[in-house]
Amino acid sequence: MKPETIERLRSLLAPARVLTSKEDLIPYGFDGTAVLQQLPACVVFPVDTQEVSAVVELANADDVPIVTRGSGTGLSGGSVPISDCIVLCLLRMNRILEVDTDNLTLLAETGTITKSIEDGALAEGLFYPPDPSSLKVSTIGGNVANNSGGLRGLKYGVTRDYVMGMEVVLPDGEIAWLGNKCVKDVAGYSLKDLFVGSEGTLGIITKVLLKLVPLPPARRTLLATYSTLEAGAETVSSIIAEKIIPCTLEFLDQTTLRCVEEFAKIGLPTEATSLLLMETDGHSAVVAEEAAKMEAIARRHGAIEVRVARDGLEAAELATARRSAFSALARVRPTTILEDVTVPRSRLAEMVRFVEDAAARHKVKVANFGHMGDGNLHPTFLTNEKDPEEMHRVELAMDEIFDFTIELGGTITGEHGVGLAKKKHLPAQFRDASYPLLKRIKGALDPKNLFNPGKIFDLQAASVSNEQLQNDA
Amino acid sequence: MKPETIERLRSLLAPARVLTSKEDLIPYGFDGTAVLQQLPACVVFPVDTQEVSAVVELANADDVPIVTRGSGTGLSGGSVPISDCIVLCLLRMNRILEVDTDNLTLLAETGTITKSIEDGALAEGLFYPPDPSSLKVSTIGGNVANNSGGLRGLKYGVTRDYVMGMEVVLPDGEIAWLGNKCVKDVAGYSLKDLFVGSEGTLGIITKVLLKLVPLPPARRTLLATYSTLEAGAETVSSIIAEKIIPCTLEFLDQTTLRCVEEFAKIGLPTEATSLLLMETDGHSAVVAEEAAKMEAIARRHGAIEVRVARDGLEAAELATARRSAFSALARVRPTTILEDVTVPRSRLAEMVRFVEDAAARHKVKVANFGHMGDGNLHPTFLTNEKDPEEMHRVELAMDEIFDFTIELGGTITGEHGVGLAKKKHLPAQFRDASYPLLKRIKGALDPKNLFNPGKIFDLQAASVSNEQLQNDA
Repeated sequence: MKPETIERLRSLLAPARVLTSKEDLIPYGFDGTAVLQQLPACVVFPVDTQEVSAVVELANADDVPIVTRGSGTGLSGGSVPISDCIVLCLLRMNRILEVDTDNLTLLAETGTITKSIEDGALAEGLFYPPDPSSLKVSTIGGNVANNSGGLRGLKYGVTRDYVMGMEVVLPDGEIAWLGNKCVKDVAGYSLKDLFVGSEGTLGIITKVLLKLVPLPPARRTLLATYSTLEAGAETVSSIIAEKIIPCTLEFLDQTTLRCVEEFAKIGLPTEATSLLLMETDGHSAVVAEEAAKMEAIARRHGAIEVRVARDGLEAAELATARRSAFSALARVRPTTILEDVTVPRSRLAEMVRFVEDAAARHKVKVANFGHMGDGNLHPTFLTNEKDPEEMHRVELAMDEIFDFTIELGGTITGEHGVGLAKKKHLPAQFRDASYPLLKRIKGALDPKNLFNPGKIFDLQAASVSNEQLQNDA
Repeated sequence: MKPETIERLRSLLAPARVLTSKEDLIPYGFDGTAVLQQLPACVVFPVDTQEVSAVVELANADDVPIVTRGSGTGLSGGSVPISDCIVLCLLRMNRILEVDTDNLTLLAETGTITKSIEDGALAEGLFYPPDPSSLKVSTIGGNVANNSGGLRGLKYGVTRDYVMGMEVVLPDGEIAWLGNKCVKDVAGYSLKDLFVGSEGTLGIITKVLLKLVPLPPARRTLLATYSTLEAGAETVSSIIAEKIIPCTLEFLDQTTLRCVEEFAKIGLPTEATSLLLMETDGHSAVVAEEAAKMEAIARRHGAIEVRVARDGLEAAELATARRSAFSALARVRPTTILEDVTVPRSRLAEMVRFVEDAAARHKVKVANFGHMGDGNLHPTFLTNEKDPEEMHRVELAMDEIFDFTIELGGTITGEHGVGLAKKKHLPAQFRDASYPLLKRIKGALDPKNLFNPGKIFDLQAASVSNEQLQNDA
């Protein structure tokens, strides 16, 4: 990067908000994804949309790529820098700007921590349902850019379902609003829906307008343990078949269960082969009925034990235990590679079994947990990146898992995004004429390939021509 | 159109499925939108995706534009032909291909009538919630292309919320699948979400994969009448403020109410100034509680009468009366212009009053009804297109209504689409750098402007260059 570019950034943002020394850059050279790392040329911390816009204008003029970053909790390398780029860190833009109780909306800056959004809604008796496991650390902008899921996805959906609008900075530095406070709007293409999940490749999200819902008055949490892997999956299928849509149906296998218990010490039965965490919320009559039905279904499928949380405190403890799965597993071996393959619900049992078999075949250690109600599994490889031979076997097992997922009509990523880590598998999933459309859209909206280049897919330079740029101007 | 093109279409599809005589073309020269009409060069009726693809390939080779059409119930001119185009009518592709009770999905061909989708789901004890008023006539492909709303939008959302995937034919004739049966999927941009509501301008939808939900076991319908316009709007605000999200909160003004009563004869109190149709569904305990609360709120706001439907039959009768509003109003004067402006819920009372005032100012007759819970109004002008002076005054009133809607943070179309009828107002709503993005996306995905050209926006020829086409190839 030209020294003048750095100088201009310093004068735009104040010198203290432009980091360039190697020690300062190191923490921004990686995210939550194993193995991937790369130092950027600098890290900048804008405090408002105007500053973001000014940085983008400068980067555009100097042809410097920008990689956007929130808390860096991503699990697919989406915020891992590329060499000689600007890392634009949005953590200083972290205010909730409005909670509109008449229209049930919340407006926040992009760097607001997800948990603060939840709390901001709660303070008005309202509810923001999406709850990625990282919610105490991750930012809402990152959630929107990756269309994050969470533990309540089965009943409440994912981040996309709560995004009503957003402010974005486009690659030429212009600021645009997508969406509004209307619960229905079909004017023009739904740009906000295109930008949700676009992983920072089309625009930089600076504000997010979210939909809130009334807080469900009651909630009940149950924990069932089984001596086989299949029994948990069958319980999930039976619950859906009986037309119950609980908010949470989470699964842990024995490895995960034991790690979590060692980590959290809440008395989980470590002799069980699998565990199902079930939660229903809503009106108290519905909750009581659904909880009773789910307990009966779990017992019918041979549960060793069904434990009903006595109160909110115990329920929270159980949910926290589940949320800590990644951290708990990360203590076992030096490197933790967490995937998020997702299949149609009816194919779950097959998928769980396949993951076990693939790991055994390649003699690697895998733990498995995930959002069973959503068909979203987190096969987690416990390995060591310093052992290339073992890493190769992990890679082979992962490749087989991705291929099998696609064969079952599934997706290579249910909630983490493609980023760098999964882009080689994307063409296999988008196996028809849909794949080139991704690149055409990127070319049309970010013709200089300035935002998060190399994420999701690689662009051939030829796909963007000067003629096109001139015509767009 | 070159005679050879017609000849080739006949040999592709069988002669009986290519209409060219003027008498045959007339019914395809307009849709549900007032005033707009244009004869196409021909109308073709493909029976499967391969035939659609073949027609598109031919049209692409001969540079002939295609306007896609379902039942032609659209209210913004989205399926009104342009001169010398092919109208591609999808009504013969009307089979439900699968109801998957394990994954709660339904796969249907694009020309399937929406009501058949609802019935197909019901046959398995499942529920497809989106219910545009036209559901007995309109097709699911048209619903998806326009992201149709309906009477249950407040609780259940709109068509987009139920689209899991679709098969589309792209402008080069290639067939692509967007989406899948996974309830979570963040692999690549959400192309399906871009195509939902794109009004046939990006691709031709040939199959739709829909999400179903469990059928709510209970339902209660209430009808409240008021002596002022505001009281209905205030009832709606209070219901939301008390954290109740019923499935339906529909509003009729006195003009609509009287027309509907004359049409349907179900004993509506025609002396009332406004009417609110409320419906709650779900668990019987919840339904009983919410219905009681809504009744109390309506009385608190001075309802003249609150009538609770005795049974499903009476409830269906009330809902049908509401659904017939457009047909009932269409009998009053020769021309009926139905709009669907939508505002944030908190601005509804202002909007309703503004519509009344604008009509009075310009001495035109307007009826008003709509989905009050969604902030979605249907101001309906009762006029005569043969009277240019009166039509001019209607135009003036409509322009003011659109401008005021945008001023309130609303949208010019909540559920009907932009089509031809509203495109002149779109730049005012997309007033920033977001507007050019629409055209860039169109240019990237349909570079020859072959699909439904001139709908949503006009493209300048310069926005698509030959260089770009070559680079895309």
